[in-house]
Amino acid sequence: MLSDLHEKSWKILSKEDVSPSKWFPIEKHEVELPSGKIVDDYFISTLGDVVIVLAITPDNQVVIVEQYKHGLGQLLLELPGGMRQEGTTLMQSALNELEEETGIKADESALFPLGKFSSNPTKTNQVTYGYIVFNAQFNSQQKLDETEDINVLTFPAADALQMVLTGKIWVSDSANFIFMAAQRYPEIFHPSE
Amino acid sequence: MLSDLHEKSWKILSKEDVSPSKWFPIEKHEVELPSGKIVDDYFISTLGDVVIVLAITPDNQVVIVEQYKHGLGQLLLELPGGMRQEGTTLMQSALNELEEETGIKADESALFPLGKFSSNPTKTNQVTYGYIVFNAQFNSQQKLDETEDINVLTFPAADALQMVLTGKIWVSDSANFIFMAAQRYPEIFHPSE
Repeated sequence: MLSDLHEKSWKILSKEDVSPSKWFPIEKHEVELPSGKIVDDYFISTLGDVVIVLAITPDNQVVIVEQYKHGLGQLLLELPGGMRQEGTTLMQSALNELEEETGIKADESALFPLGKFSSNPTKTNQVTYGYIVFNAQFNSQQKLDETEDINVLTFPAADALQMVLTGKIWVSDSANFIFMAAQRYPEIFHPSE
Repeated sequence: MLSDLHEKSWKILSKEDVSPSKWFPIEKHEVELPSGKIVDDYFISTLGDVVIVLAITPDNQVVIVEQYKHGLGQLLLELPGGMRQEGTTLMQSALNELEEETGIKADESALFPLGKFSSNPTKTNQVTYGYIVFNAQFNSQQKLDETEDINVLTFPAADALQMVLTGKIWVSDSANFIFMAAQRYPEIFHPSE
């Protein structure tokens, strides 16, 4: 039987900002568990939410960005995306990130939600929201930060799914949204079936 | 065309430990980009690796744990798992976590890899390794920490996949390993096809 959130939630008794930098915000919480136990040093990162876009070209190719990621120290293949921008909606942030990283300008009428995922609910409050864009056109230009160097690639949708299954695309949320899209749009991802 | 890691890697010029706690290790890096640009404040969290286990019972049920996660502040349905334990192999850590969280004791001969995922390669070096265990039996006991309160549930494999597709299971790596298993073992996850 499923539990009741109200019976399981931890009560926050106090919070302290212990961020080493604005780039990595961290709070120290003093919490009371349902058992009555007090934990005075529970740390969580209040990272912002993330938006990710699976863009499909008119010939059913998926747009993939290749980029060096310094946390892991590797070149990785991912769906375009980034942090939700302050003062904009999730959908507008998704469209902005898509255009900035790939030069694809689309509008909200072409954008459909693919769901959301939490990548580390133990240590962060971050949620990643995914969208699919159909009829993606390279009709604009990349707008990169000084630290960004993004290689834009396209792969047939069926190949992109295979790249997840064989571990070539292995960033969690990119993989999840490719799986979600493949289930919802089999005509694009499994064209021969 | 894919890029060459050696041409895209950032060079670490210096590192400093700026962890607010041993529970949230953070390093500040001074890095040199391939362009020659120096960034003197790039922050990454050196979180350890994670192991996750998709356990299948003899009647093709998937074992799911329900637990309050304070980062997100929600009750979540996930596959059992946890941090890789120091001094043990990934596989032994996976088996230990499975037994501690669910009371299922299995051995390495029943464990098969499902792949690996990186959930935040921008900000962490953490990698999550997934395994599947067949013929899972509730033959031992949970061994929980004082802060853990884990509700062990089972769902038919086909239902677990539907729970991912409908957003009821939405923790990234649990979702990914259910998708991976469903693709590799269709006879378990799509029994009627």
